[in-house]
Amino acid sequence: MSFWAPFPEIQQDLDRVRSVIDSEISTPGGIVSQGLGDLARRDAKLLRPGFTVLAARIRNGGNPASEGIVHLAAAIEMLHMASLIHDDIVDNAATRRGQEALHVTHGSRLAVLLGDFLFARSFTLVAEHARSSNARVLSPSVARLVSAAIAEVNDQGQLDLSPRRYLHRIVGKTAILFALSFHVGAVESTPTGEDDRVVQTLRRIGYNLGVGFQIVDDLLDISGDPAKTGKPRGTDLRSGIITLPLIVALQQDPKNELSGMVREIRRGRGHVDRLLEQVTRRLEQSGALSATAAVAERYTHRANRELMRLPLGRDREILGSVAVRLLQRSA
Amino acid sequence: MSFWAPFPEIQQDLDRVRSVIDSEISTPGGIVSQGLGDLARRDAKLLRPGFTVLAARIRNGGNPASEGIVHLAAAIEMLHMASLIHDDIVDNAATRRGQEALHVTHGSRLAVLLGDFLFARSFTLVAEHARSSNARVLSPSVARLVSAAIAEVNDQGQLDLSPRRYLHRIVGKTAILFALSFHVGAVESTPTGEDDRVVQTLRRIGYNLGVGFQIVDDLLDISGDPAKTGKPRGTDLRSGIITLPLIVALQQDPKNELSGMVREIRRGRGHVDRLLEQVTRRLEQSGALSATAAVAERYTHRANRELMRLPLGRDREILGSVAVRLLQRSA
Repeated sequence: MSFWAPFPEIQQDLDRVRSVIDSEISTPGGIVSQGLGDLARRDAKLLRPGFTVLAARIRNGGNPASEGIVHLAAAIEMLHMASLIHDDIVDNAATRRGQEALHVTHGSRLAVLLGDFLFARSFTLVAEHARSSNARVLSPSVARLVSAAIAEVNDQGQLDLSPRRYLHRIVGKTAILFALSFHVGAVESTPTGEDDRVVQTLRRIGYNLGVGFQIVDDLLDISGDPAKTGKPRGTDLRSGIITLPLIVALQQDPKNELSGMVREIRRGRGHVDRLLEQVTRRLEQSGALSATAAVAERYTHRANRELMRLPLGRDREILGSVAVRLLQRSA
Repeated sequence: MSFWAPFPEIQQDLDRVRSVIDSEISTPGGIVSQGLGDLARRDAKLLRPGFTVLAARIRNGGNPASEGIVHLAAAIEMLHMASLIHDDIVDNAATRRGQEALHVTHGSRLAVLLGDFLFARSFTLVAEHARSSNARVLSPSVARLVSAAIAEVNDQGQLDLSPRRYLHRIVGKTAILFALSFHVGAVESTPTGEDDRVVQTLRRIGYNLGVGFQIVDDLLDISGDPAKTGKPRGTDLRSGIITLPLIVALQQDPKNELSGMVREIRRGRGHVDRLLEQVTRRLEQSGALSATAAVAERYTHRANRELMRLPLGRDREILGSVAVRLLQRSA
């Protein structure tokens, strides 16, 4: 079931977003349409465009999103798709959304260009449909998104990562774009375009939901059900990406046993699958998983506290329910 | 000697463009600044930003380019750099500007992200400094640029390419961005921003120079001096990219000898270097190289005919001289 199915009014707006994406992807024809169509047809949560639509509705009194909002929401999802395609090349990830990653089915070289195409079309939609103030906010965020991905590559295999550096990375990787998805929807639906209290509140909600979301993602990579997440456990660890559960656990690793196992996994030597199981068990027993889950919860609570400042109504209720679903998700 | 050295007024504006690029690249620090700084320091012709500056001067009566123009010219060069980085990954090219390509020195994965970073910063500069009408023209051109690169990958090894399809590809690959470099400089320096006859003329000049430039590039790949071009001969052929000289020659290849050799080179079997020499000799003897050179000349003539419509003055003279230098270049 789609993530937004319980909220038919959002789902209806998102169906329009999907048509825009489909039309953007099918227009060029040939290998572009084939490769990207493949990816677009896979089940995506459409979180970011959902946030944009939701923020717009909170501002416009609960009406369907305007055509402009629908196109901007499509632009944000296409930006996200582009970064997924390139990230999968960078991480050498085998699967995406439960199927082979694009660089596996179409080769890394073509995948680079397919990602570029989405970037370019996304910027085109923004140039056509956003107020120039919003366009000026969007592109630096993309640079920040890319910088976070570069930091992740840079940090690979580095075991003495601070929680602070981890947080900075996931803010760039996820929270900025979450915040921006709300921001764009809210500002574009504000007649004067001014950055008022509601816009700021929505942006903060996006930020906190984003940090919480990424922490849950990193937890699912360690202890999630592969049948639900659509990727094998320990994908991050295998490519040397160190996330919060491990950072927490490594702080209590006096005999360096855990760090030894992590290094072995990274080297790909020996029984990687067995080592991964051992690491996972250790993270559970040491309380690192539940400590990490508590951090994710804390960010969700912050988002919910901010929520109280929004005008009462059905869309605020939906947002509250979305926050819980994001925290408790298994996929 | 730099391409623009004979024109000190242009060179001065380009020094300012270079400072903007340097500052964009050095701001993030770390691996981003190191990797991109490496590339930026190599000798580049700075053709596209030179065109932007030149078009601006033709519109503003020969004055130095405004700060806005300088930033937009930097954005265009950064866009070009980004596409070079990704193209080199796609073509698996070993060298760029006489030195190892970025994906060789820093790995393909990081190179994907370094290209993305330049794309994002380039769009940011456009959002900050361009009139929104120009921003709306720039991003679809990037999509066209990417589509041309995808077409090139798609056409790889296909020997029955029509001159028409080749032309379409190089228009997307080179001419569109040349035309746009002139367009942006001219429109931003026109008080009302209107698209008048001079703007259209400059755009057509860019288009024709671009097609001519790319044909000369493809000729140099076959018969240029590696010490000057900074890359080994036959780079295109080795990766199965079929260009105009070969398309012309293959039209008179009744015994399929030439196509046989090309296929062997593509397979990388046998003495590729010897085969490349044979193909080159054949292209020379058959008159395919000179026929191709004549096509490049024709486009340069078209640009020069358009030039006559521009207001008389020093900048028009520079442009005429640039057209000749681009045609007769050996690097």
